Amino acid sequence: MNQSTPSATVRRPFPAELLASLKAELGERVSIAEAVRMHHGRDESPFAPQLPDAVVFAQNTQEVQFTVTLCAQHDVPIIAYGNGSSLEGHLLAVQGGVTIDMSGMNRVLSINADDLTITVESGISRKQVNEALRDTGLFFPVDPGADATIGGMTATRASGTNAVRYGTMRENVLGLKAVLADGRMISMGTRARKSSAGYDLTRLFVGSEGTLGIITEVTLRLYPQPEAVSAAVCVFPSMGDAVRAVIETIQIGVPIARVEFVDSLTIRSINRYSNLTLREAPTLFFEFHGTDASVKEQAELVQEIADQNNAEGFEWAMRPEDRSRLWNARHNAYFAMLQLKPGCRAVTTDVCVPISRLAECVTETERNIMESPLPCPIVGHVGDGNFHVAILIDPEKPEELEEAERLNRLIVQRALQMNGTCTGEHGVGLHKMDFLIEECGSVAVDAMRAVKRALDPRNLMNPGKIFSWVH
Amino acid sequence: MNQSTPSATVRRPFPAELLASLKAELGERVSIAEAVRMHHGRDESPFAPQLPDAVVFAQNTQEVQFTVTLCAQHDVPIIAYGNGSSLEGHLLAVQGGVTIDMSGMNRVLSINADDLTITVESGISRKQVNEALRDTGLFFPVDPGADATIGGMTATRASGTNAVRYGTMRENVLGLKAVLADGRMISMGTRARKSSAGYDLTRLFVGSEGTLGIITEVTLRLYPQPEAVSAAVCVFPSMGDAVRAVIETIQIGVPIARVEFVDSLTIRSINRYSNLTLREAPTLFFEFHGTDASVKEQAELVQEIADQNNAEGFEWAMRPEDRSRLWNARHNAYFAMLQLKPGCRAVTTDVCVPISRLAECVTETERNIMESPLPCPIVGHVGDGNFHVAILIDPEKPEELEEAERLNRLIVQRALQMNGTCTGEHGVGLHKMDFLIEECGSVAVDAMRAVKRALDPRNLMNPGKIFSWVH
Repeated sequence: MNQSTPSATVRRPFPAELLASLKAELGERVSIAEAVRMHHGRDESPFAPQLPDAVVFAQNTQEVQFTVTLCAQHDVPIIAYGNGSSLEGHLLAVQGGVTIDMSGMNRVLSINADDLTITVESGISRKQVNEALRDTGLFFPVDPGADATIGGMTATRASGTNAVRYGTMRENVLGLKAVLADGRMISMGTRARKSSAGYDLTRLFVGSEGTLGIITEVTLRLYPQPEAVSAAVCVFPSMGDAVRAVIETIQIGVPIARVEFVDSLTIRSINRYSNLTLREAPTLFFEFHGTDASVKEQAELVQEIADQNNAEGFEWAMRPEDRSRLWNARHNAYFAMLQLKPGCRAVTTDVCVPISRLAECVTETERNIMESPLPCPIVGHVGDGNFHVAILIDPEKPEELEEAERLNRLIVQRALQMNGTCTGEHGVGLHKMDFLIEECGSVAVDAMRAVKRALDPRNLMNPGKIFSWVH
Repeated sequence: MNQSTPSATVRRPFPAELLASLKAELGERVSIAEAVRMHHGRDESPFAPQLPDAVVFAQNTQEVQFTVTLCAQHDVPIIAYGNGSSLEGHLLAVQGGVTIDMSGMNRVLSINADDLTITVESGISRKQVNEALRDTGLFFPVDPGADATIGGMTATRASGTNAVRYGTMRENVLGLKAVLADGRMISMGTRARKSSAGYDLTRLFVGSEGTLGIITEVTLRLYPQPEAVSAAVCVFPSMGDAVRAVIETIQIGVPIARVEFVDSLTIRSINRYSNLTLREAPTLFFEFHGTDASVKEQAELVQEIADQNNAEGFEWAMRPEDRSRLWNARHNAYFAMLQLKPGCRAVTTDVCVPISRLAECVTETERNIMESPLPCPIVGHVGDGNFHVAILIDPEKPEELEEAERLNRLIVQRALQMNGTCTGEHGVGLHKMDFLIEECGSVAVDAMRAVKRALDPRNLMNPGKIFSWVH
């Protein structure tokens, strides 16, 4: 699928001795069953599965350290697995090796409500985090849609619907612990809100896609639950109108909590999937957080801007249950879309551009899509300039994959020309290695490779992702 | 002053041939005059100057690249100089070499008002940036007090009074360009608001203190100027009361723009220096940004919290000129303090702790200070949990330096025990290398060193700072 993939897919030997040592220590929490390996050798990307040689279900940091140290002795790759929601092939064992399933490490280690921080094991999911916070009056805002683990979200620098107000994992991870390729534990960051103490290793690990170490513990920033929340839906005659309304909202500095764009094809899929009757037209979903007065003020401002951009009606969802229904529908959009073409997989684009170029970028993308035979619903975290085209392909038809890649390339190249990025939140994985070079230039990718070699000289940690090992 | 300093102070040879080559290309913009070298071999720290062998006044990126490439050929260190406001010895040429004065590179390269971004050469100062933005309705919020250059602020991960609302340089640098140790240009980041494209090299360079490369260009996030601004001063009977008012303000999520703590000794110095008549007691300076309604709402909430914490009067500064006078006074606090003890230098502590521990941390620090013979005014960006004790010493008296270091060590160790950091915003420089190991652990500092070696294998870039070169 990508030029760089084949060369990475040279499987390394998996010694029987390693398996025996793992079993001796971990017993039934080591599996080589094909069904288990199959489950862990794939993700939500359209790539064919590539199975690890074994899967370890870790219960604590010591077991991760034990597994990594043992694998390192045998020169065997290690891949961390959260809940499999990656869209870029991050979890495929392209060189074989051991996948560590982190979902058993889902404990809350401490909640420091007074400091607005929580420290968790990395295998906890974002919904579990918010469940644990239920009685504190606080919440963790980063919300990529899927109920991903905090470790996975950290490793891909995830963001999602709330990032326009609360930032991404980049802004919301205060510190973390990880097991390095040589089995040593490394600790980064503190619980202080800011620091100038040496290189920002925390930020280096946020977005490292499992290639620098296995994240075992994460300290997150929390926020007081807003006194008031309101949500609204608004329909526009064109994508351009909808996006222009968002651009103006951001430019005047309304502290909007979420603003999501959904095209008419996606609305159709959501209506079917969630049994709703939303009007099938380009739509914005809004959410406002604040005091009663400020939410009202924000909403009035945004409604005025929407009206000036030809909005066709502004519908409010004031009751919590109406808001939930609305946002659940939006969150299920990915699965709803997949139902548009039974048996399909989605090649999902993830460009992010400077906000002023967003209307142009989306409108030109729409033109490309209209000319394509494939169904291509569009959703977007438009407040950040980020949108996704889910190009729906029949995985059995190579010509559809080819067409999807052609579209993907067009969309990415346009975004790069606009000074944007090929990936706003999904990461590079297997799929965007060439795009990364186009975006950053070879000197920057060389520097990334040099950092990787410095911390993982034998390329044990999730090898074959982000960039090729050799120049 | 610090155990690691002496071993770093082995000056490297400075070949006549290198000087000749620099002069041939750059002419009068290369200086070996002692006054010039003296000016560039010191900063605002209490360290004795250590002079570079030559100073280059660069006018553009090509000249930086030329200088770095030439120095690399001769194994000569390179130090970037902004405007000399470092407090941690960053600018001292502990191994000799060439200092590049970046202040000639102060051009605005582009303002993208619609995207809320600006791209500048790194030698521009923060005031120059805001001057350039004057007619755009936008501003750049990060404000460390001194009129530092954007390059210097990026290199030290600076923050200051506005960070509680707008974040630090970590959050506000979108991308940058730098010259690497081998003379190659590296480009990082895009103008998009977020990205998951590979390792976060931008964040790696933010806070790298000149040790990974010379930053030549920076793209910054901008913010719409708030519709309404108001400021207030409020006096408390004790430091603890003042800090508790701040903690509650942060915990309930008031989006306060600034909240600065100033102790009574500092108020006395400000009154003298700025010819004011502020009451000499523990004081909070507040600033509120927002719409008219939200500023009013924030201010009422904060006033209520202050009252509950024994505030003695809340004074408003509604007119822009009153606000300016107030904030100028706060900004000049550092220079005002130095006047408390003629001829003194300040050893400035910079701890930052989780907000819930701040009252305890400040109160215990106050006790240490009361027992010390040295004058020790305290100011703090308390909304972030960050405060500074300026320990005023006579640089001619070694016993005063020793006492300052004793206090410093006490304060840092307390902060680390509270899960805080030894430096909230000033950086490590020469002074905090041992504290860094205590804070992060040797595995993390090893990892930093490995990253440094990967990008600068001959230790040419600002050597002797952050950590020792050998383990």
